[in-house]
Amino acid sequence: MLLRARELDEADPLADYRDRFLLPDEVIYLDGNSLGALPRATPKRIAEVVGTEWGHGLIRSWNSADWIGLPQRVGGKIAPLIGAAPHEVIACDSVSVNLFKLISAALELRPGRNVVLSEPGNFPTDLYMIEGSRAEQRLADRESLAGALDDCVALLLLTHAHYKTGAVFDMAALTKAAHDAGALVLWDLSHSGGALPVDLRSCGADFAVGCGYKYLNGGPGAPAYAFVAERHHDALRQPLSGWMGHAQPFAFDDAYRPAPGVDRLLCGTPPVIQMTALEVGVDLVAEMGVERLWAKSRALSEFFRECLGKTELELVSPTDADARGSQLSYRHEEAYALSQTLIARGIIGDFRAPDILRLGFAPAYLTFEDIARAAAALREILDTGAWDRDEFRQRAAVT
Amino acid sequence: MLLRARELDEADPLADYRDRFLLPDEVIYLDGNSLGALPRATPKRIAEVVGTEWGHGLIRSWNSADWIGLPQRVGGKIAPLIGAAPHEVIACDSVSVNLFKLISAALELRPGRNVVLSEPGNFPTDLYMIEGSRAEQRLADRESLAGALDDCVALLLLTHAHYKTGAVFDMAALTKAAHDAGALVLWDLSHSGGALPVDLRSCGADFAVGCGYKYLNGGPGAPAYAFVAERHHDALRQPLSGWMGHAQPFAFDDAYRPAPGVDRLLCGTPPVIQMTALEVGVDLVAEMGVERLWAKSRALSEFFRECLGKTELELVSPTDADARGSQLSYRHEEAYALSQTLIARGIIGDFRAPDILRLGFAPAYLTFEDIARAAAALREILDTGAWDRDEFRQRAAVT
Repeated sequence: MLLRARELDEADPLADYRDRFLLPDEVIYLDGNSLGALPRATPKRIAEVVGTEWGHGLIRSWNSADWIGLPQRVGGKIAPLIGAAPHEVIACDSVSVNLFKLISAALELRPGRNVVLSEPGNFPTDLYMIEGSRAEQRLADRESLAGALDDCVALLLLTHAHYKTGAVFDMAALTKAAHDAGALVLWDLSHSGGALPVDLRSCGADFAVGCGYKYLNGGPGAPAYAFVAERHHDALRQPLSGWMGHAQPFAFDDAYRPAPGVDRLLCGTPPVIQMTALEVGVDLVAEMGVERLWAKSRALSEFFRECLGKTELELVSPTDADARGSQLSYRHEEAYALSQTLIARGIIGDFRAPDILRLGFAPAYLTFEDIARAAAALREILDTGAWDRDEFRQRAAVT
Repeated sequence: MLLRARELDEADPLADYRDRFLLPDEVIYLDGNSLGALPRATPKRIAEVVGTEWGHGLIRSWNSADWIGLPQRVGGKIAPLIGAAPHEVIACDSVSVNLFKLISAALELRPGRNVVLSEPGNFPTDLYMIEGSRAEQRLADRESLAGALDDCVALLLLTHAHYKTGAVFDMAALTKAAHDAGALVLWDLSHSGGALPVDLRSCGADFAVGCGYKYLNGGPGAPAYAFVAERHHDALRQPLSGWMGHAQPFAFDDAYRPAPGVDRLLCGTPPVIQMTALEVGVDLVAEMGVERLWAKSRALSEFFRECLGKTELELVSPTDADARGSQLSYRHEEAYALSQTLIARGIIGDFRAPDILRLGFAPAYLTFEDIARAAAALREILDTGAWDRDEFRQRAAVT
């Protein structure tokens, strides 16, 4: 398969982008869906924002380096990656905090309705933020969601690509179903934004949030982003009404007046250094293009399945590459030991409790050769039954 | 005065710390109360967290570099600076977001009471976050606060050192007054933490929040911190119940169970890079010691007043150095032009609408010579009447 892999790499239109990232030589990184890799341009840009903008510019850089405009500028660059207009997206806070803002906003926009509908097994923070809000939480399995939409439901909150299985919702169909029932929709794009084609506008989505540190390569704890469809801009109210979301933050008025549009989602002072790192990552994704990334992602995961062949692993991701995110998840009762054994060999995927081995195929920096090698290693580990990391090391030491 | 200043610098026990910061030569920085200066150690530490921990360690660094423990570790280091125990403080989110958590928590702890009492002219975000919460906001002038504490008041929320005037509240007395009325107290330490002596425990304070990018020198948009007195740890509930505040975030349970103690204030993924920068700043403040910083701060501001002498400026900060924070604020109808004229000369203070020239005396990196030069420049500008920046430049060009 290595020859095949090299041919595929030769033909890969994104092949040159591998060198735009700094990755350790000894690692095959199948966890970009958890934390994206480091763009080569990021350290220099961060050194500049720290040394020059902070160190030399000091407080003046809020204006001279346009720190104050970062949330809008970075949000505006994320917008085309998710089918939104630039003024509909803002980069700020965490996914969790943005969920709270938009759950609360949806309840305000749908008076008399108090239910937020989601699915069991959604990413935990999505469910926890519903719990923390004043909404009543209702959970229904994905095949029962449409039927669970009644006139109590203010908001349908779903994760577009499931964090554990990668299964992708039909965004257009579910958005329509929610709207038909009089509910709003909030899409969590953490596992799809920057990796899969997302077209919020054509779906008529109301709200979305997404993660900056996965496919956008913004670094650990990068700011998240939030989308609000333009038609909701004027009526939108959210409770985290901090000074940065005020119409005139530097008027220092005692009374809150929301800024226009998505700016009112801002709360506290933006994390300038991480926001700058996120901008580098976003620029890179925009340059590669989501369509090309998505095509390569599907090719990588299909090639992995081909290289791996039939094993005792149970694929829990959809077998149709179009129906899953940029990942393959396998169920095995020894999934944890398996993931540790892979990591000891420099093949970094991850484990999701209780029994999932999750392998991500971030197309920006993976080669087909990486894929062939990772599949061969997994196959060998399965064939030799070397589950246990310590046992595996002992075997390695004596052979 | 320059000779006097040099003598004072000679005798300054913190003089050597000036070189632990990177400041541009041509600047006298009187705005550390808005954005602290860059510690010399920060760029290297950031380069390490970016290049080595993110770039090489990748997802593994959550454990191997203990990214996951950063909020507790940094919070624990801030604790002794504000008279708290390490397990009572956590670094996370922004001041605004932390205010929301603790306002909401206070309302839960005082059922039947719905009022949050503050003062008009408090820092805007403190007032705006009360507005955003489900509380009823009540404002009373600082001399009327004690009288406004009735059995409707769940929480007294005040900023210890006023952002505009620097006036400092008697934390012990107001905490006692609130407790006598059955209310809880939340202190915003943004303009005092790391600059003034704060002893939350001996005052019996319930909650506090504070800023990471002012006197703690954590960089633009550094994470904030939050304090919860140990006696409230078990009963504390807050609505931003994100996955990082779960008892077992990586169990990925559908139902939220709060983590023990202040950990339940966590919400989303911590901003690792900015958190690391904050740690460097906090370590430096801890090394200098708040008592020494506070002594120098008072000496700097008193020396400034002496150097400036009598002018048409109206001091709105308390004349007693013990009754104000690390700043002097002057009222003048041309305060904006005055601040711009100073900035054009490399003397960076700031303007606070509508008519305040605010000069900060961050003692970590200012010299007495800086103070003498800044005062002389201000005096000269006032004497020559060169208010207008453009006019001042024209004068400078022809003389």
